[in-house]
Amino acid sequence: MTDRFRTAILGLGLMGGSLAYALRGFKDGIIVGYDPDEATQKAALKAGAVDAIAFLPEEAVKKADLVLFCSAPSGIFANMPRCFPHLKPGAVVSEICGVKGEMLRFVQQHLPSHARYVGLHPMAGKEIGGFANAEGALFQGAGFILVPPEPHDESALALLRALSAYVGAGRVVVNDAAAHDLLIGYSSDLMHIAATALVEEYPCGLSLAHTAGAFRDCTRVARIDAKLWRELLLGNAESITPHLDALAARLAAFSAALKAGDGAFIESFLSRANENRLRIDKL
Amino acid sequence: MTDRFRTAILGLGLMGGSLAYALRGFKDGIIVGYDPDEATQKAALKAGAVDAIAFLPEEAVKKADLVLFCSAPSGIFANMPRCFPHLKPGAVVSEICGVKGEMLRFVQQHLPSHARYVGLHPMAGKEIGGFANAEGALFQGAGFILVPPEPHDESALALLRALSAYVGAGRVVVNDAAAHDLLIGYSSDLMHIAATALVEEYPCGLSLAHTAGAFRDCTRVARIDAKLWRELLLGNAESITPHLDALAARLAAFSAALKAGDGAFIESFLSRANENRLRIDKL
Repeated sequence: MTDRFRTAILGLGLMGGSLAYALRGFKDGIIVGYDPDEATQKAALKAGAVDAIAFLPEEAVKKADLVLFCSAPSGIFANMPRCFPHLKPGAVVSEICGVKGEMLRFVQQHLPSHARYVGLHPMAGKEIGGFANAEGALFQGAGFILVPPEPHDESALALLRALSAYVGAGRVVVNDAAAHDLLIGYSSDLMHIAATALVEEYPCGLSLAHTAGAFRDCTRVARIDAKLWRELLLGNAESITPHLDALAARLAAFSAALKAGDGAFIESFLSRANENRLRIDKL
Repeated sequence: MTDRFRTAILGLGLMGGSLAYALRGFKDGIIVGYDPDEATQKAALKAGAVDAIAFLPEEAVKKADLVLFCSAPSGIFANMPRCFPHLKPGAVVSEICGVKGEMLRFVQQHLPSHARYVGLHPMAGKEIGGFANAEGALFQGAGFILVPPEPHDESALALLRALSAYVGAGRVVVNDAAAHDLLIGYSSDLMHIAATALVEEYPCGLSLAHTAGAFRDCTRVARIDAKLWRELLLGNAESITPHLDALAARLAAFSAALKAGDGAFIESFLSRANENRLRIDKL
């Protein structure tokens, strides 16, 4: 058993748990899981998502060929320094944090030279977290962003590509950390902020009868884990605020056009949005 | 045939066409359709969505017990004055315009005293319009807002309730025009503006791999008919701009909190949004 490829997954919530399910049999190896929550440990073992449970993070990474940090960002930042001294030579480290610039700086500061690192961001999720909601199919067709440091180890990047393919990733792209953060600051962070801002207040008298698909879809991700997203948004604040300020300015301009009855502005704004929306589906 | 209940539907696009399909057999009656587009006339007849086609709007409403104006707002405003002199005594007039204040004032100015009016707003639609996309199931489970004038005719309101039930409406609410416009200014208009503003610009380097459910859902309705929505948004500008200005201010405040690293503000903003989103689902 010791010679088999060993994957350690630290944090068995929605993302780590789903990766555990999806990675069963990856490289004919075994999966060792760690989670601080005892009920999660038991559930993951019972469900067969992991082959073994480690009771300490550093126990999980010993002998591991691939170590995936899958907690919330604060958990990753807490676990990495504990685990890094126990990494075996040649181990590949990855993590699924939604912000990569800060993560990369942290890893470069702490990772021992005999280990290798490539960041991973699976563009998948659900409004509800926890191992109970984990499922192996979560990543089917999802975009996967690989974020290698510069310079990086080609075989480590290849391992992450293999992992992405194994769990069913759709398009896989490689970005540096700065590009990742800027793009995700738009495609994910800004969307979540907009959705929450849309329901931060709502008019008296509103009922479900007044809502249709537009409301449902525009506000779906306002069902949000506030503690997790506080971390993610603060961690990517520099990349988010230019998008956010531009959005607020566009809405203010749109409001001014409505007040002025400027139909030409409104129609051209809407046309451009319609064209952009179609175009993005083909990128 | 002349004694049977007669429904006239003016405008056989997505909404009028879908109503035609859904209303087949309503009150054991017949449906007469009008649409200025010849291909639509033929398609609607061929599909059996209507029993007869009128070649002029005023021909369609003659002898009709129920007249449904289903064009874009400008089409409704153009057709009503042509048709109203031809209404038979006791006819019930309705329309599906998404803005009711302006419509109500227009109807009260032009409707002959022997006819009755109740506004209707089915909260259903698609990103793509036209008769080709019409379907009878469009209204299944949808919210229906009935907007009677004050004072109103109870039997006319009852007819619209019966229509709503017949086409499969979910919740049905009655609002006055001002309340309707304020609530729809939030639940529909504001959502469409937010979705379009989110894709009015997007960062260089973006690909589909960077997008997931949040992007897809938050921006779905940015696929928009710019001419139609120009009319709708301008027609409801007074009800929309307070929502829109509040949204822009909330986004600016959120941006300021991100820049200041104010985690407490961010977490409480997100928590409140999460709670509101859950609450709205139970309204």
